[in-house]
Amino acid sequence: MSLDNLSRSAYSEDHEAFRATVRQFLEKEIAPNAAKWAEDGIVPKDIWPKAGELGMLCPTVPEEYGGLGLDFGYNAIVDEESAYYGRATTGFSLQSDIVTSYIVKYGSEEQKKYWLPKMVAGEVITAIAMTEPGTGSDLQGMRTTAKKDGNHYVINGSKTYITNGQNADLILVCVKTDTEVQPAWKGVSIVLVEADREGYERGRNLDKIGQDEADTSEMFFNDVRVPITNCLGEEGKGFIYLMSELPQERLSIAVSAQASAQRAFDDTVEFTRDRKAFGKPILDFQNTRFVLADLKTKLQVGWAHLDWALARHLKKELTPEEGAAAKLWHTELQWEVMDKCLQLHGGAGYMNEYPIARAWRAARVTRIFGGTNEIMKELIGRKL
Amino acid sequence: MSLDNLSRSAYSEDHEAFRATVRQFLEKEIAPNAAKWAEDGIVPKDIWPKAGELGMLCPTVPEEYGGLGLDFGYNAIVDEESAYYGRATTGFSLQSDIVTSYIVKYGSEEQKKYWLPKMVAGEVITAIAMTEPGTGSDLQGMRTTAKKDGNHYVINGSKTYITNGQNADLILVCVKTDTEVQPAWKGVSIVLVEADREGYERGRNLDKIGQDEADTSEMFFNDVRVPITNCLGEEGKGFIYLMSELPQERLSIAVSAQASAQRAFDDTVEFTRDRKAFGKPILDFQNTRFVLADLKTKLQVGWAHLDWALARHLKKELTPEEGAAAKLWHTELQWEVMDKCLQLHGGAGYMNEYPIARAWRAARVTRIFGGTNEIMKELIGRKL
Amino acid sequence: MSLDNLSRSAYSEDHEAFRATVRQFLEKEIAPNAAKWAEDGIVPKDIWPKAGELGMLCPTVPEEYGGLGLDFGYNAIVDEESAYYGRATTGFSLQSDIVTSYIVKYGSEEQKKYWLPKMVAGEVITAIAMTEPGTGSDLQGMRTTAKKDGNHYVINGSKTYITNGQNADLILVCVKTDTEVQPAWKGVSIVLVEADREGYERGRNLDKIGQDEADTSEMFFNDVRVPITNCLGEEGKGFIYLMSELPQERLSIAVSAQASAQRAFDDTVEFTRDRKAFGKPILDFQNTRFVLADLKTKLQVGWAHLDWALARHLKKELTPEEGAAAKLWHTELQWEVMDKCLQLHGGAGYMNEYPIARAWRAARVTRIFGGTNEIMKELIGRKL
Amino acid sequence: MSLDNLSRSAYSEDHEAFRATVRQFLEKEIAPNAAKWAEDGIVPKDIWPKAGELGMLCPTVPEEYGGLGLDFGYNAIVDEESAYYGRATTGFSLQSDIVTSYIVKYGSEEQKKYWLPKMVAGEVITAIAMTEPGTGSDLQGMRTTAKKDGNHYVINGSKTYITNGQNADLILVCVKTDTEVQPAWKGVSIVLVEADREGYERGRNLDKIGQDEADTSEMFFNDVRVPITNCLGEEGKGFIYLMSELPQERLSIAVSAQASAQRAFDDTVEFTRDRKAFGKPILDFQNTRFVLADLKTKLQVGWAHLDWALARHLKKELTPEEGAAAKLWHTELQWEVMDKCLQLHGGAGYMNEYPIARAWRAARVTRIFGGTNEIMKELIGRKL
Repeated sequence: MSLDNLSRSAYSEDHEAFRATVRQFLEKEIAPNAAKWAEDGIVPKDIWPKAGELGMLCPTVPEEYGGLGLDFGYNAIVDEESAYYGRATTGFSLQSDIVTSYIVKYGSEEQKKYWLPKMVAGEVITAIAMTEPGTGSDLQGMRTTAKKDGNHYVINGSKTYITNGQNADLILVCVKTDTEVQPAWKGVSIVLVEADREGYERGRNLDKIGQDEADTSEMFFNDVRVPITNCLGEEGKGFIYLMSELPQERLSIAVSAQASAQRAFDDTVEFTRDRKAFGKPILDFQNTRFVLADLKTKLQVGWAHLDWALARHLKKELTPEEGAAAKLWHTELQWEVMDKCLQLHGGAGYMNEYPIARAWRAARVTRIFGGTNEIMKELIGRKL
Repeated sequence: MSLDNLSRSAYSEDHEAFRATVRQFLEKEIAPNAAKWAEDGIVPKDIWPKAGELGMLCPTVPEEYGGLGLDFGYNAIVDEESAYYGRATTGFSLQSDIVTSYIVKYGSEEQKKYWLPKMVAGEVITAIAMTEPGTGSDLQGMRTTAKKDGNHYVINGSKTYITNGQNADLILVCVKTDTEVQPAWKGVSIVLVEADREGYERGRNLDKIGQDEADTSEMFFNDVRVPITNCLGEEGKGFIYLMSELPQERLSIAVSAQASAQRAFDDTVEFTRDRKAFGKPILDFQNTRFVLADLKTKLQVGWAHLDWALARHLKKELTPEEGAAAKLWHTELQWEVMDKCLQLHGGAGYMNEYPIARAWRAARVTRIFGGTNEIMKELIGRKL
Repeated sequence: MSLDNLSRSAYSEDHEAFRATVRQFLEKEIAPNAAKWAEDGIVPKDIWPKAGELGMLCPTVPEEYGGLGLDFGYNAIVDEESAYYGRATTGFSLQSDIVTSYIVKYGSEEQKKYWLPKMVAGEVITAIAMTEPGTGSDLQGMRTTAKKDGNHYVINGSKTYITNGQNADLILVCVKTDTEVQPAWKGVSIVLVEADREGYERGRNLDKIGQDEADTSEMFFNDVRVPITNCLGEEGKGFIYLMSELPQERLSIAVSAQASAQRAFDDTVEFTRDRKAFGKPILDFQNTRFVLADLKTKLQVGWAHLDWALARHLKKELTPEEGAAAKLWHTELQWEVMDKCLQLHGGAGYMNEYPIARAWRAARVTRIFGGTNEIMKELIGRKL
Repeated sequence: MSLDNLSRSAYSEDHEAFRATVRQFLEKEIAPNAAKWAEDGIVPKDIWPKAGELGMLCPTVPEEYGGLGLDFGYNAIVDEESAYYGRATTGFSLQSDIVTSYIVKYGSEEQKKYWLPKMVAGEVITAIAMTEPGTGSDLQGMRTTAKKDGNHYVINGSKTYITNGQNADLILVCVKTDTEVQPAWKGVSIVLVEADREGYERGRNLDKIGQDEADTSEMFFNDVRVPITNCLGEEGKGFIYLMSELPQERLSIAVSAQASAQRAFDDTVEFTRDRKAFGKPILDFQNTRFVLADLKTKLQVGWAHLDWALARHLKKELTPEEGAAAKLWHTELQWEVMDKCLQLHGGAGYMNEYPIARAWRAARVTRIFGGTNEIMKELIGRKL
């Protein structure tokens, strides 16, 4: 079982060579520890530098900032293999696919020089803090404020559901630097907050339905002072930055969703071939074959679409609506595959010792995070 | 929020009076401890006698065997209220709705005299062991054997996914007393095995996706000797007994599924009314209203069907196919409600601290246990 | 094949006796002519008095107005049997289930004395004209006006999709008698317009996807003068009347939908039992059995719900939301059944000579008329 | 509205130039007559040579046989534009996409020399007769026989649901030349039968749910004598030929399905933007936007997949399972789009005068013909 032989078109030979590196890393570094990390609810920081050494972190960072200056296809390879492997490296993806772009594109020269090499090396773990308790995907409704006091901001508020929330050394905090301006989105800025700033407090590592090893947290900001030079790009442009980077975030989610769905499918073909009921393999029942044939069809369609979307993104042509559509479609597919595959496992599917149970639990969040799928429909629908 | 005011037709005033008792019990005895039990993965045995005192266990047991001689409507009331309350008392339901019938209908006078009063009182906890590793819902394919040796059976084999598996004092074990006979189902018998018999070994308390507080186990039988008088009813009739009792088991699952779906719906109406996004309650978005209107419609349909099925069952007219249809339909409804309601919770829905997350995890098994929904379709389809 | 043996609870023996009469009528009067009527796009008027003689029209009209003073159960029996028979008598249902109630409840003594006996006898065919070109289910947006001129109204406007539009002798026209008043619904009235009034013009008999024999028309009103005594009930109360009668209309649609779905199912079981592929009856393929088992399950649930709704309606307890839910659910079920059953017919399903093709085409309108199913969700959702 | 601007990747500039030719043809030759042809149930033969002149028929025929020697992309362009235009040119597609390949690949030099130039020119209309009354998609179960008598076959049997059945001058008839051989598929051959052979009789032009202008017929063969040189390729290889050509047939169906779905979507966006309800365009309701956003997403995915499949087919890499998956997925998508778009039209959607009603009726057959979608699942499932 692997992601080979899928008639893909998105990748070059170099990409595929990199894939082998990623696989080795997963086998060697993740496999022996995954169960423990799931129990701990967190991945230890020391795995990051190991990934960094192999070029798996932030591959798109330009060489002048310590990176490899590669294209997003390398990110996608890491996402695919990790998702197919089935043990969360969500944290890597957050740093490589999302945070990196913000700093590369909007960061000051100083910020880039300081943070990017550390991020590439895995010496610094980052997070981006958007969601607040009670506001969900509504970024304009955020209540965390950054008030100017001399050449500092004073930040107050709280965030929640933040990936890498426990491990993060650096947090890109979405704040309101202006609470009066209309329309409200013009008051949104992104400010870099180092985790050792006074007044910053990690909340609980949240107890989630799945993705057990991914730390997801609340964060509290009580009069946290940071220099105004910590603002990312221009004040009041935060919302625009977020909008411009969301297509890549959404594509990244789509990539992982598709690959994890493929894994669940492959596992289930194997399971139903091995397991017998009423004297024959479960796979030999017409219903089983029909369910799996239908899923295989949708996976075929999905890979074709993903490669189309990746190709467009590499050419910088993927529109926000297309990115939203990718996130919507692939996560819905992922869910359908997971749930039908779990069902074909029968009682075993409900037991956490089976990979399908973990994959199924992990998958449930993808229709919600990165903007709920309802928000995706809203975004696409508005442009009609 | 409650199950009142649903325009039901199945129950008398006496039934409804009993409902109040059940509610009090849940509030007083379950509420303060539920979180701990979920963490422990098991409900302590000492809660059983408290339920017994209130008449909540095995209400259909005739008075001559220590019971109240009531109808299945009382069982259904316990199931509904427990499911609506949302914390597993699956164990009660297993004993009251399923095991009781086997012993009342097929047990010897001695077995009835000995076991039923203890079951009513909650002094004895029971389980029924059907599923085996690798066979799923295929009862004819079971491999656990009971070989006669003088006036004893010697039982060998293993079972899995057994509800009450850790707590059980008495297990109704489905075995093959004849492995040669054709058709194979004629070799199936049910044998009572006390948990203190030598050679009987509890396996792990299985780590499940949900229903955290319900102990579900593997069981191992290594040369377990029990007197042949422990056979339930006639040797070789086990399969017939199972078939005859499955409609009630399936109706019981349908009852709980419907009530827990109603709870998720009620919770979600409240949540979406309170929670705001983009400046207004989530409930005020047309999509939210449409999703909830659709679910409310299906719940209305479901209650009408459930009452029809309960009425037929009380008149002993519910056919195996109708019972299978009830299990199939209500558990599919339950799942649809759970999953759509979770989605309307956004990020909160993925956090175990929210009731919807627990209810959603708990619900996933109902399409699988009591015979998978595929088996239900097979049973119904065969009769066309 | 018949609607017997469905474990119903809604009907008395008298209802069931009446069912036999209806069946005979369908066999004797409809069967030999149905194909021709379908081709003609209209049912000849002379069939109406024959139905009237048998008590099949407007059974709820009180005896003092020439009726039988029966309950709505008799209407439902006509609806069920006609729908199960599969050839449109939509026109009857419109008159019996919908128009009758308006006149009985809100008509003046004169109107009742004049029209009801003729309606019961089938001497007068009625229609109710709500929908207008371009407004759909939005009653408040109607543009047809009735301006007072002395003791007459002068009606101008046009209507469309009007059942019985070609045959109608009397039309209940929904008009705005006040175009200024706010809220707009307070300007709505219902006026009786005889088809021979000057200025009234029938439009085309519309070419529809299905229900070939049911005439459905446009109507034009050009300075049509009617005495103000033709107003039904009070001026400005039309919207309230419409709202109060819609539950029965919707229940009526639900009844027909359920019965026609049952017919499609019964036909398909027979078809798949007879037709072979790959050397065995299509019914013997697991996929066929699963599809049909699933539909049978839903039909079982549907009958239980329908009987619950009928019982509530007979006790005058059915709420507008419950009526809307019934229309929504049963028409969605009808569609699912029709479409899956057509598919199981293979190529034959696409040929109009097969009953399933006609039934499928006929069924597509039920999710639209009587208020679209989106409107149903809106109505139910508003009350959450 | 057009199929431009869809970020396609399958076509070259030459393909796109050809697209303009096809569009002109549709506007000039089809538009003025389409309504009449729909009423007649058939397209007149004289339209064929006009299409032939423009290179629209059988573009893949090599130049030596009077063709243009182009690739299948040109076929696909005709299919796309015709389907988007919305008036049936199913007959063209049958000849160009399906029959052509059989003759080009398996025909004798004589057959190719004689028939192909006439097919390219539109002087000869062809059909392929597979399905028989009562056997559906089961090719091995066919009962039409061709018995050898000297150097002639004597053909007996009947076929049904044959596209171009009325117009056809030449029919590729699937027959059993050996009814004894096992496995049965080894007895299948394809024989060319000219429509003027004695004993060949056209049956009725069948009355279908949709595709009104496409003649679809029964065919009867009563002792039809044809020289054995009329056998296509080798005797007994018919089944293999059919299997080898089905991927292209299925891709052709997928192409048309996708394009017609796009048209229904585009029409519906326009309709809901123009039509108002409750004081605002229907498109402004969140439900409308969500439904359309979801469909737009799926159409985006569909185009990406279609281009992937076309690219693979042009490279001769499309497997039978991939072709089956394409047919399955795109026709299911087409149906979903059609049905949801019809619903958004409200009452208008049920009226045949609206394009959506015709498109919807036409679309219902695509899940059935070219092998039912159940057969597609069977084909894909077998290879798991």
